[in-house]
Amino acid sequence: MQLDPSGVVPVYYQLKELLRREISSGDYAPGAQIPSEHQLMRRFGVSRATVRQALGDLVVDGLLKRRQGKGTFVAEPKLEEDLAGIQTFNRQMADRGLTTTVKVLSQFWLPATTRERELFGLAPEDRTFRVMRLISVQSEPVFIESWEIPEVRCPGLLELDLSVFFNEILRGRYHLPVDREVKYLEPAVADEFEASQLGIRKGQPVLLIERISYPPSGDEALFACKWTVRGDRCRHMVRVGDGVSVRPGTGEMT
Amino acid sequence: MQLDPSGVVPVYYQLKELLRREISSGDYAPGAQIPSEHQLMRRFGVSRATVRQALGDLVVDGLLKRRQGKGTFVAEPKLEEDLAGIQTFNRQMADRGLTTTVKVLSQFWLPATTRERELFGLAPEDRTFRVMRLISVQSEPVFIESWEIPEVRCPGLLELDLSVFFNEILRGRYHLPVDREVKYLEPAVADEFEASQLGIRKGQPVLLIERISYPPSGDEALFACKWTVRGDRCRHMVRVGDGVSVRPGTGEMT
Repeated sequence: MQLDPSGVVPVYYQLKELLRREISSGDYAPGAQIPSEHQLMRRFGVSRATVRQALGDLVVDGLLKRRQGKGTFVAEPKLEEDLAGIQTFNRQMADRGLTTTVKVLSQFWLPATTRERELFGLAPEDRTFRVMRLISVQSEPVFIESWEIPEVRCPGLLELDLSVFFNEILRGRYHLPVDREVKYLEPAVADEFEASQLGIRKGQPVLLIERISYPPSGDEALFACKWTVRGDRCRHMVRVGDGVSVRPGTGEMT
Repeated sequence: MQLDPSGVVPVYYQLKELLRREISSGDYAPGAQIPSEHQLMRRFGVSRATVRQALGDLVVDGLLKRRQGKGTFVAEPKLEEDLAGIQTFNRQMADRGLTTTVKVLSQFWLPATTRERELFGLAPEDRTFRVMRLISVQSEPVFIESWEIPEVRCPGLLELDLSVFFNEILRGRYHLPVDREVKYLEPAVADEFEASQLGIRKGQPVLLIERISYPPSGDEALFACKWTVRGDRCRHMVRVGDGVSVRPGTGEMT
């Protein structure tokens, strides 16, 4: 007996969390068929409705996949991104032998908004480049990225081929010395446009990551980028501590 | 003109992203009424349908709130958690003068699962304490936390008052020396149980954070905790770089 039917936490929820842990720890291999509803009912001593509710939620979360007439299978493991890596996601994938492809969705310039003028330290007449790209890993769309780059930092940017690793343009060609970054993370659900680009359904979970990049000195950011990342295909990791990089208890990197 | 009607990115999406940035940068104060649909139509030269779609999505994301018969207002800013802080969320809130309250939802022990035996280095006969709690900030439910703690690390834990800062029990009473943590983040949508506890609607975005805590030496974790955090009330921050704690380009804290 691994579920507790007493108390306020419903049994379907306990079952779901238990299966979630077994899947993420590799107890069931990716692509493997999970036990049938009947087997799960017997193993945990629960009703069919309970099993169905738990499995249905795990399908929404992207951990299980249903194949019509065949059963329920463990999805491929999510791509894992190191949040504390100043290295781009693209590069992290490349290091694992995964091919990343880039499709430019839009590129144009606009007068800088109030927020952009403050963030980047721009004059009222300055313009900002906006570049939106769809990034795929192994031909599967994984995230949308939206860059905001002050024209003064990268004159002529929009005339370049933008379907390449972007950080290499910004560092290599424009010599923008990124020294530190702040990332903000919020969960959201895919809207119509995002869902159509990412090949998922509207309402599926995505993670919004906004990254602001700063030079070695000064409070004016170099550029900013927002990612909309598929939740069913990616998870994000951060290491804290190791007795070296982060002073435990301070809540601050030192 | 700050929107580009040509190209593949729909104007409603551009408008939404622009408003999102203006709101998160404080251009509109929390609680302030935003311009009317008509004003936004004129300012951006777009249709009423476009304005409605953008505003509707921002309400789902928790950035705007509608008040029946009164209009659309900017929501209170989200609580911000420092992901690289080994400090608990509770303590981070307390440091800002916010009152955190704790309600124990369930507490029981169970035979350790395969995954728990591997993670914590347990014997087949060992048991794991499972404690689920609802955490509120300023009386508003904000996240659910689910602890998995090997009984061998904390004998007698379930007899204690568990409605207090938990890390203080684990460190103070049981002297568990947390040296480093790994956190995994994934977006999800609230299910029925989570929504009812958190006071949100089923399908609203939440962030799942799983944290595994390790001692100074050895690969066996001390304990683990999973958070289900309201996306409409919290965002999460991580700093990378500063030329000190993280070696840029390595993707590793050093």
